[in-house]
Amino acid sequence: MTRWDELSDAEMELLRATFWSAGVSRHLLAGRLGYSRSKANALASGLLEQGLLEEAGLQDSSGGRRPETLKLNGALGVVLGADLGATSLDVAVMRPDLTVLAHHAEPADVRAGPGVVLARMRTLLGRLLQECGATPQQVIAIGMGLPGPVDFASGQLVNPPLMPEWDSFSIRDFLAEDYAAPVFVDNDVNLMALGELWRLQRALPNFLVIKVGTGIGCGIVCHGEVYRGANGSAGDVGHICVDRSGPRCHCGNLGCVEAMAAGPAIARMGLEAVQAGQSEQLAQCLAQHGAITTMDVAQASHNGDAAANAILQRSGNLIGQMLASVVNFFNPSHVFIGGGVTGIGPQFLASVRQSVYQRSLALSTRHLEIQYAPLGTRGGLVGAGVLAMQETLRRARPA
Amino acid sequence: MTRWDELSDAEMELLRATFWSAGVSRHLLAGRLGYSRSKANALASGLLEQGLLEEAGLQDSSGGRRPETLKLNGALGVVLGADLGATSLDVAVMRPDLTVLAHHAEPADVRAGPGVVLARMRTLLGRLLQECGATPQQVIAIGMGLPGPVDFASGQLVNPPLMPEWDSFSIRDFLAEDYAAPVFVDNDVNLMALGELWRLQRALPNFLVIKVGTGIGCGIVCHGEVYRGANGSAGDVGHICVDRSGPRCHCGNLGCVEAMAAGPAIARMGLEAVQAGQSEQLAQCLAQHGAITTMDVAQASHNGDAAANAILQRSGNLIGQMLASVVNFFNPSHVFIGGGVTGIGPQFLASVRQSVYQRSLALSTRHLEIQYAPLGTRGGLVGAGVLAMQETLRRARPA
Repeated sequence: MTRWDELSDAEMELLRATFWSAGVSRHLLAGRLGYSRSKANALASGLLEQGLLEEAGLQDSSGGRRPETLKLNGALGVVLGADLGATSLDVAVMRPDLTVLAHHAEPADVRAGPGVVLARMRTLLGRLLQECGATPQQVIAIGMGLPGPVDFASGQLVNPPLMPEWDSFSIRDFLAEDYAAPVFVDNDVNLMALGELWRLQRALPNFLVIKVGTGIGCGIVCHGEVYRGANGSAGDVGHICVDRSGPRCHCGNLGCVEAMAAGPAIARMGLEAVQAGQSEQLAQCLAQHGAITTMDVAQASHNGDAAANAILQRSGNLIGQMLASVVNFFNPSHVFIGGGVTGIGPQFLASVRQSVYQRSLALSTRHLEIQYAPLGTRGGLVGAGVLAMQETLRRARPA
Repeated sequence: MTRWDELSDAEMELLRATFWSAGVSRHLLAGRLGYSRSKANALASGLLEQGLLEEAGLQDSSGGRRPETLKLNGALGVVLGADLGATSLDVAVMRPDLTVLAHHAEPADVRAGPGVVLARMRTLLGRLLQECGATPQQVIAIGMGLPGPVDFASGQLVNPPLMPEWDSFSIRDFLAEDYAAPVFVDNDVNLMALGELWRLQRALPNFLVIKVGTGIGCGIVCHGEVYRGANGSAGDVGHICVDRSGPRCHCGNLGCVEAMAAGPAIARMGLEAVQAGQSEQLAQCLAQHGAITTMDVAQASHNGDAAANAILQRSGNLIGQMLASVVNFFNPSHVFIGGGVTGIGPQFLASVRQSVYQRSLALSTRHLEIQYAPLGTRGGLVGAGVLAMQETLRRARPA
């Protein structure tokens, strides 16, 4: 097979553009690159012949000859993606164009430490590869998301508040025992942002992805690229203060939005509603399962429970208040909300919006869209695949 | 003279790099561009011959032959810069390398409307040009900063809260009567950020400039470029809430940092201190001048007045509280504070720092530097010059 480093700059550009333009016709692709149609066709023919691209079937067009779309050749190998949340593990084997070949999700507890969690991940990845009939040698690259601040260059967590045992643990060395492929690690919400950027084919240059789960984080896309900040901690919005007389957060400060509005706070407010005798439905949940979860509150709200409604509204308003500051500062075109709350219903989203529109300046919100993240809970995994392929196609640039 | 559009891409790159690298040796310049020394020398010789570059004297080097530095040729013409604040007007005539040839600053009141203020600016610019012995035909480009939200493409203010009469007024058409040169307009604090970026020769890719004067605004540098947001309103941090039970701001919301901590709030707190009998010194100011200004409070604090100290500390703490949210979100390497408060002394800066370090996460502040803007009150004017030259050298790219 042709080696990446034997390709010309223009050929590499076409490969990268093909990856970022799923389902786009050759004609449009040439336009995006500023190439003539004949130049793009000549390059594509060469890459098809070398087995780097393949044709992706016919696409409807406005008439005449139907232009064919291109995609990265499945024969190049497979990409492994892993999205580790505070309480969940998602893994997948993907084709180079990010079509999912095999997927598995299960609960996990990051506090069990890297030894336990990564051993489980290794087992799952091996099993999924087998299911697809693929070998570790066929893996091109591995992308992984983690729920904490990651030093992108080393791929290691730096002082992660929720998972101290992971500090400076080398995930690369761990995976190197099984795979020769390069491993790329990033913060989970940065990967959600990268996933949405890929889905959008980079059509929006400035947007945010807010993840609300055990914690609250924000992925930032600025000038068409994921922005990680001076020390990789950009988007750490969970500890923005929304109430100076609020409760103390594990970070030591008072009134952090994470402590007052994320998943655990929603569950805690649910419990308090039961204790105050305000919710029949949540009282039943507690009696049946011995605990109340965020999704119990969402379900009760869905069923019309007034106390559950008020809890989601309060959480949404507080998150909206934090977002109002961020929107005034960053003036994004879109805010996508994802994470565990994605399935929580329209009430929550409406409360977030109300609070942002009330507190932000008219100019910042005139065209602002606030919606649930279109990739939903798949965002992190898609982003892990994008990261793996993006870095591979970057590194493969001729020296 | 050679026309810009007859130059090669590499020659234009060298001109741009020379502009952004004042005082840097040819050798280092070649390195920044990724050119070989011989290629850079050949290009530079051609541009020197065509009168686009000139040699800028000898520079100390580590030994051997002393390398010469380059700069844009003064014969290219002059750049006009104007920095309009809410209460001040600064204008200058600059060489293409931004050496100031003539400068004038005076008080102004933007609320007098564009007719009055711009007519005065036109008079001043004409006078300064004469002083330099230059003609309107020699003007290459004009850069201007305004204290409100600017639509960068049209160069017009959009719903400016402090200066409603300026809404959609065409500064370009107004200046076109005197000058054939292109006019570039931006928000004043974006220009301060651009000025610092130029001073730093783009060595810092991610930093903020906070302007504290009549209002509070923020210029954002992200990925090495000024970031203006989806609608040009990025950095509008003056209306971030720092106290939900604070006073009502002119924007309609409660507890905006601008209403509680900017120049007018400092002056108002000064007056209140006099009324409460807490400050001898400020009482004397009031008796002498009939009013108390921000600088009166600064002077009193400098002289050890306890009430004035407390006022500056309160203002600094509130601004630091707003900045803590912004730092958590953006994780900049540096925050530069400028505007009217630049001369206010170390007490204010210490209060800002204290508040940020207390409220921001350790990872975001580990390497964070908070200091007064090195360009001080000149920042906006330098930025206006940078904008004019940057856009000229961009537009002059061969088609």
